[in-house]
Amino acid sequence: MNKTVICPGSFDPVTLGHLDVITRASKLFDRVIVGVLVNSSKKPIFSIDERIELLKEVTEHLNNVEIVGFNGLLAQYCEEHGVDAIVKGLRAVTDFEYEFQMALTNKKLNPNLETLFLTAEADSMYLSSSMVREIASMGGDISNFVPACIHDRIVERLKNK
Amino acid sequence: MNKTVICPGSFDPVTLGHLDVITRASKLFDRVIVGVLVNSSKKPIFSIDERIELLKEVTEHLNNVEIVGFNGLLAQYCEEHGVDAIVKGLRAVTDFEYEFQMALTNKKLNPNLETLFLTAEADSMYLSSSMVREIASMGGDISNFVPACIHDRIVERLKNK
Amino acid sequence: MNKTVICPGSFDPVTLGHLDVITRASKLFDRVIVGVLVNSSKKPIFSIDERIELLKEVTEHLNNVEIVGFNGLLAQYCEEHGVDAIVKGLRAVTDFEYEFQMALTNKKLNPNLETLFLTAEADSMYLSSSMVREIASMGGDISNFVPACIHDRIVERLKNK
Amino acid sequence: MNKTVICPGSFDPVTLGHLDVITRASKLFDRVIVGVLVNSSKKPIFSIDERIELLKEVTEHLNNVEIVGFNGLLAQYCEEHGVDAIVKGLRAVTDFEYEFQMALTNKKLNPNLETLFLTAEADSMYLSSSMVREIASMGGDISNFVPACIHDRIVERLKNK
Amino acid sequence: MNKTVICPGSFDPVTLGHLDVITRASKLFDRVIVGVLVNSSKKPIFSIDERIELLKEVTEHLNNVEIVGFNGLLAQYCEEHGVDAIVKGLRAVTDFEYEFQMALTNKKLNPNLETLFLTAEADSMYLSSSMVREIASMGGDISNFVPACIHDRIVERLKNK
Amino acid sequence: MNKTVICPGSFDPVTLGHLDVITRASKLFDRVIVGVLVNSSKKPIFSIDERIELLKEVTEHLNNVEIVGFNGLLAQYCEEHGVDAIVKGLRAVTDFEYEFQMALTNKKLNPNLETLFLTAEADSMYLSSSMVREIASMGGDISNFVPACIHDRIVERLKNK
Repeated sequence: MNKTVICPGSFDPVTLGHLDVITRASKLFDRVIVGVLVNSSKKPIFSIDERIELLKEVTEHLNNVEIVGFNGLLAQYCEEHGVDAIVKGLRAVTDFEYEFQMALTNKKLNPNLETLFLTAEADSMYLSSSMVREIASMGGDISNFVPACIHDRIVERLKNK
Repeated sequence: MNKTVICPGSFDPVTLGHLDVITRASKLFDRVIVGVLVNSSKKPIFSIDERIELLKEVTEHLNNVEIVGFNGLLAQYCEEHGVDAIVKGLRAVTDFEYEFQMALTNKKLNPNLETLFLTAEADSMYLSSSMVREIASMGGDISNFVPACIHDRIVERLKNK
Repeated sequence: MNKTVICPGSFDPVTLGHLDVITRASKLFDRVIVGVLVNSSKKPIFSIDERIELLKEVTEHLNNVEIVGFNGLLAQYCEEHGVDAIVKGLRAVTDFEYEFQMALTNKKLNPNLETLFLTAEADSMYLSSSMVREIASMGGDISNFVPACIHDRIVERLKNK
Repeated sequence: MNKTVICPGSFDPVTLGHLDVITRASKLFDRVIVGVLVNSSKKPIFSIDERIELLKEVTEHLNNVEIVGFNGLLAQYCEEHGVDAIVKGLRAVTDFEYEFQMALTNKKLNPNLETLFLTAEADSMYLSSSMVREIASMGGDISNFVPACIHDRIVERLKNK
Repeated sequence: MNKTVICPGSFDPVTLGHLDVITRASKLFDRVIVGVLVNSSKKPIFSIDERIELLKEVTEHLNNVEIVGFNGLLAQYCEEHGVDAIVKGLRAVTDFEYEFQMALTNKKLNPNLETLFLTAEADSMYLSSSMVREIASMGGDISNFVPACIHDRIVERLKNK
Repeated sequence: MNKTVICPGSFDPVTLGHLDVITRASKLFDRVIVGVLVNSSKKPIFSIDERIELLKEVTEHLNNVEIVGFNGLLAQYCEEHGVDAIVKGLRAVTDFEYEFQMALTNKKLNPNLETLFLTAEADSMYLSSSMVREIASMGGDISNFVPACIHDRIVERLKNK
């Protein structure tokens, strides 16, 4: 089968946990779209262009992955772009309930759209972009949390925020 | 026995999930007060008058239900108005912990006040006003989520918010 | 309105937590049936007759409470006996998930049957019959956990089990 | 890509919830193995042969689904049979924690093996084989819970168990 | 052994739940630092100086407890000040998940730093500073929630907020 | 201060997760008792003597740790043996609710007895003795789950159970 999935998120910034989920999705499905939410409401630290650029860099070696900016209703986007399933990482220590609510809502809006959850690696189970932002802004070491090739840029940007 | 209960909430806007809980409460208790929180802090999409009006319309056929605006401490309101119990819908996929904390606090403030939880219908388990607002503001279809008779007004109001 | 509710359980033995729920239900509803599960499968410590007798004793002062032995499907029993709602105590520190599953199933089996959850008192939140059995069997003090008037009989029965 | 997944379980008996997960997996992946646990320890109501037969019947129309009896370590089976991922339905109202623990353990045993969770339909969220067995054994109506074509056989088998 | 622990928090204002955790920590460890977060981002109701003063007053009788204002990364602070463990109260009815995520992150940042959780008293399980603020601002009675010696000042400050 | 704590459990068999908790407790407290439950009810795979012996071997290098067999009520044992606190590992992916219930009960039985929870290492978060037994009995590799020095004996004992 030829299947397309989407990994949606804010990616502000991308973490090793995100990269792990994207990588694993790319091994199971033909085409993986990383959908970066434009979030008009929340004020992101990294602009939409920066977030897309960082993602492109860390997924460069994955041939079937593409990065797109994304706005509006996820269920609609999937219908218009032939996406078969949403793929999300599920951390034991995070918002399972919210993800579930989203998945049921998306199913109601688009009955053909699946949501698939991958279990996060034990090691990145506690990781979140907000945690990374908080630690880096206080001068903490984030080298265990973000991809090495973009580490310096993230540190530079977040310090003293 | 002659018992009065209250269904408190923001109802911004009322959903089919709310209506389900109110309807079921009206079959079990003599008098059901729907207490609409005035929320001075949060900025509601619908004004307190609009929210009350929408609720009146969708509960018109329920003779023992009345809608009131409500401010201040719920436990105090209940004491002053002879309310015997708070009735809330409990969704598996939502803030059980918060509801529990509120119920224990209200019990501490007013030991005679009960909190009763009704289990949400499986079908409305994922429903919340904020989800409805989000979907409608992005042009999604909310006809499965809100009462039919007020659907158009909600859509009109929320689009492009 | 004239409403009948049922508090189902094994009551092996009845605890202060059970008594709290039964008492509060008796203040909200006209008639409260305490339905003691006969449990052919599990081996109870107290026989069905003993469990009924202990419950009768501790609810003697509650005029609208009656104790019945109960077998088979709860949803069917409620339909046959004009029961409007199941009332259960909900402990933050216990099987919420299971109760929810039961409530949804009972609703599916009998759409007119409600399940209402009361929040347990903070103080009896950790209480369960199995905990009481375990503690008493090892000679621990259970006077904080069971009604005073039946304390000695329970201790006598459970010691060295 | 050409991917094989496995849906493991006891299927004692198969429910509409199971069938939903199998059906949805068959739309996303090339080959779906339904692995029926032989469970030497637990005493199943239906024999391994019966459970396989019931599953074959209800999945007859799904060309890329095959039913196998299965024993031993799931991670090993997957390695030996070229299975790329385990697919499980996740019910909000059930053992999420246990599934997570299994997924992390399987990953540790076989790092190439993924576990994917599908969210159960809202409507089958409360469904489990043990609930079906319990209801049917007490004469309750299980027609909402099991596939129609095998309903009578299950009822026949479970009554008065 | 000579061990130092820290009880971090916003303490805006200190509650009986906080005091309970601090008191119990002071019985188990040689030195207890109460670290008051300066929170540049959130707007506290009580200034950092006021929060420190209220804490000093309610812990006056505990000889091995000291109160400090605290800024930046907790893991770093602990390393620089020879703190062996973080001690936090864990309420069944609150953010267990968040605490867990923090503990795992702190461990990653400073592998020698432990996080120890004390179970809250059943009676203060529902208590939080935000609940206290909300109730007091609406004129509710908070005498069950805050230490008696600072009750009046808190009430005075919070009314009509 | 001179403090004694107890790490209770079945340890059937001891895992790397247990050893991690014991080791960390031994760094924070003067004396650590590992209390091995004799479990008259459950049938252990390893006898009480074997479980004690395995624990002695893996904790040989920890001078302030001692292993004892243990029967009856934990709260009583602690009172009689001058134990100040129970120390337990808390896995995000396991029975938090049960542990909380036990902690509240023990506090009720012995108000001076504390329960302290350590967060499990991310890596051993999914580990349990029963998982180890299940995997080993089916010939799976458990070298990531149990201490190296006792690995062979455990494998030998569990295979084909």
